[in-house]
Amino acid sequence: MLQQLKETVFKANLALPKYQLVTFTWGNVSGIDRENGLVVIKPSGVEYFEMKSKDMVVVDLDGNVVDGELKPSSDTPTHLALYKAFENIGGIVHTHSAWATSWAQTGQGIPAYGTTHADYFQGEIPCTRPMTEKEINGDYELETGNVIIEAFENMNPLHTPGVLVNSHAPFVWGTDPMNAVHNAVVIEEVAKMAAKTRSIKADTPPMDQTLLDRHFNRKHGKDAYYGQK
Amino acid sequence: MLQQLKETVFKANLALPKYQLVTFTWGNVSGIDRENGLVVIKPSGVEYFEMKSKDMVVVDLDGNVVDGELKPSSDTPTHLALYKAFENIGGIVHTHSAWATSWAQTGQGIPAYGTTHADYFQGEIPCTRPMTEKEINGDYELETGNVIIEAFENMNPLHTPGVLVNSHAPFVWGTDPMNAVHNAVVIEEVAKMAAKTRSIKADTPPMDQTLLDRHFNRKHGKDAYYGQK
Amino acid sequence: MLQQLKETVFKANLALPKYQLVTFTWGNVSGIDRENGLVVIKPSGVEYFEMKSKDMVVVDLDGNVVDGELKPSSDTPTHLALYKAFENIGGIVHTHSAWATSWAQTGQGIPAYGTTHADYFQGEIPCTRPMTEKEINGDYELETGNVIIEAFENMNPLHTPGVLVNSHAPFVWGTDPMNAVHNAVVIEEVAKMAAKTRSIKADTPPMDQTLLDRHFNRKHGKDAYYGQK
Amino acid sequence: MLQQLKETVFKANLALPKYQLVTFTWGNVSGIDRENGLVVIKPSGVEYFEMKSKDMVVVDLDGNVVDGELKPSSDTPTHLALYKAFENIGGIVHTHSAWATSWAQTGQGIPAYGTTHADYFQGEIPCTRPMTEKEINGDYELETGNVIIEAFENMNPLHTPGVLVNSHAPFVWGTDPMNAVHNAVVIEEVAKMAAKTRSIKADTPPMDQTLLDRHFNRKHGKDAYYGQK
Repeated sequence: MLQQLKETVFKANLALPKYQLVTFTWGNVSGIDRENGLVVIKPSGVEYFEMKSKDMVVVDLDGNVVDGELKPSSDTPTHLALYKAFENIGGIVHTHSAWATSWAQTGQGIPAYGTTHADYFQGEIPCTRPMTEKEINGDYELETGNVIIEAFENMNPLHTPGVLVNSHAPFVWGTDPMNAVHNAVVIEEVAKMAAKTRSIKADTPPMDQTLLDRHFNRKHGKDAYYGQK
Repeated sequence: MLQQLKETVFKANLALPKYQLVTFTWGNVSGIDRENGLVVIKPSGVEYFEMKSKDMVVVDLDGNVVDGELKPSSDTPTHLALYKAFENIGGIVHTHSAWATSWAQTGQGIPAYGTTHADYFQGEIPCTRPMTEKEINGDYELETGNVIIEAFENMNPLHTPGVLVNSHAPFVWGTDPMNAVHNAVVIEEVAKMAAKTRSIKADTPPMDQTLLDRHFNRKHGKDAYYGQK
Repeated sequence: MLQQLKETVFKANLALPKYQLVTFTWGNVSGIDRENGLVVIKPSGVEYFEMKSKDMVVVDLDGNVVDGELKPSSDTPTHLALYKAFENIGGIVHTHSAWATSWAQTGQGIPAYGTTHADYFQGEIPCTRPMTEKEINGDYELETGNVIIEAFENMNPLHTPGVLVNSHAPFVWGTDPMNAVHNAVVIEEVAKMAAKTRSIKADTPPMDQTLLDRHFNRKHGKDAYYGQK
Repeated sequence: MLQQLKETVFKANLALPKYQLVTFTWGNVSGIDRENGLVVIKPSGVEYFEMKSKDMVVVDLDGNVVDGELKPSSDTPTHLALYKAFENIGGIVHTHSAWATSWAQTGQGIPAYGTTHADYFQGEIPCTRPMTEKEINGDYELETGNVIIEAFENMNPLHTPGVLVNSHAPFVWGTDPMNAVHNAVVIEEVAKMAAKTRSIKADTPPMDQTLLDRHFNRKHGKDAYYGQK
């Protein structure tokens, strides 16, 4: 089981450069084994083209390394906070993909401008509030997780499977590691289109709510009819 | 005949990722056999790299599946409405290509800014009106076809072989499936240039009408002189 | 000699898709044999991937086909006008490359914003005046050449080896066909940077004239010291 | 030792087209052997795909060619000035990469908008002042080095490993030639994101200083904890 998760997380990490979501080592993917409370994550600062599946690091939910010879990603405390708070997610991706990061740098969420967005996100993709000096100088990576969780109060994380961290970059999740990568590709594409939309017409309003719900539900609702069964 | 159309539609679908018009499964191509009143279309939500020509789905003009084991694209009712209304078209493409989709998200048509546009479209590429709540909650995909048809009242669909659906994305057509793909590439290129044109000079006016007609007619008029005979 | 020019022009045409300057058949390259007054040019509307060197068309300076089985590019009269007016040029390229075409669509020349521009163009890259109704409805392609020539009154074409045709796209030239392709790559790169420059700071002024001259002359002046001898 | 540096500088030069930082020959990399006071640099105007490691040119710190049959890059005096002024750097890169060059053309530094920037640069990436007529018409390439050095008064070059030369393009450095190339990729990525950030929200303020310091120090400070040891 854990061996299989290491393979899955390894392949999901390799998908980041394949989809052009990362420059150098600027990103990581993790996956969780809920039954045993273990998380598999990319090692810190290791190049994608050198990495092997055995380099994946296994940590428990307190961040203790249980298996692996390398240090886990420095973002591990953020991942763990999200797994604890969002019980239905199975994989998390962090990248500095250019368009989503540019939105994060403005401190604004990505408005829902069209059906591409609505097919995956049931509304605006939120941006976290700026972190306080105390949070930044304290357990910074844990606090990064906390401001994300704060932004998702009363929201279903699987209906909005990603967030922009203010002045930083996106964190994205899904039902499993590859689904999280899929959503990371979507958030970059949606961020790109939203920026272009604004550049063509600066005051474009968000899309109609009825249309947004129709698209989200035809893929994700109880009567979903997109795709094969 | 039908076997050949399935091959053609299959190849035209594979051309979408080749021309970088689609992310994941966000697009589809269909073709029509006018003599037998049958339409061949991509199956819903199937990955391009896994798809085979035998996976293409054959439906009649009422949307009944006549041949194929998979569900047809969820956009099939839109395609069928267009084939019924536009009697001279032979293929239809739907994508969420980034530039054309961004224009659709602004709710604006693409102005004719230069001869690249005029070589294919005899004027602005229109954007449909917003759909009503009733249309969205009703036969949504059929109604999508209806607002397109409404936008083309008194227009020749082959002189303006594509449209932007408001808050959604482009639908493009042509004399056959590969010609429709060709036009989908053109609409994306024209959408890109129009956005860049505006970003360089926000108040750029549409091009001169005489120049537009000259270019359209040198490729499409009765005295066309572009290309080999 | 002519056989060699056909090879050269053929290879220069193939360089257009290689440098991503053309979509489909939207571009052409020609070269001139000054001694014999003959011009070799791409055939009209033929796909790059199907084209062979024997498909190149040879015309005299009056536009009569001297050799070749296909129709020459519909832009041939523009090329011929330029060869007659600009006696030192040896090759001409026409493309609809995205950034340069977007500038042409605004009707504005490309200001010299930096040394990349100054290394090749001794000042603004001009945009032609709009053509009159009479010019458009008359010998359109010849008149296109004439408005270019009008824009270059009192200018050295080899010190400004390209132009934007208003509402259309760039024509670029050089000492030979491959040098013209080189300059077509440069004009696209310079057009891209100029647009980005404006998007970052809308009122960026043109560069200092002394700096422009220094850069142009270190590559092209009589005391040029760039490159190997 | 020198042979090895020539190999290193050769490979670092080839990395420029690989990372899409250069068009044609618009860029160069050098490296220094501090012990012997020798610099290895790309030859002037030679195409990357034709270049061999033996073509690298060795010069002393006064610019005399010590080894090699070709002329060194015309930018050599700029490199030498920087090596003399910045004693801890081991490699220098100059490119005309599109986004960084566009910022240079505006005459503005690149503000620190987010953690991607902060991971490498401890504050704004500066832009040099415009050069005077006398500097431009004098020892131009040496004076280019001098205005860079002027901009770094009281700054640690390794905490801000790059600069924009006004109306020109970036110069970037690092602990060795490949590290300099790494930083050249980063500056282009950061320049791209900063431009997009502004295009989404024109008045985006620079990031919080505490957050900037935290990110810079987790990679570069004495208690750095990013990466493997």
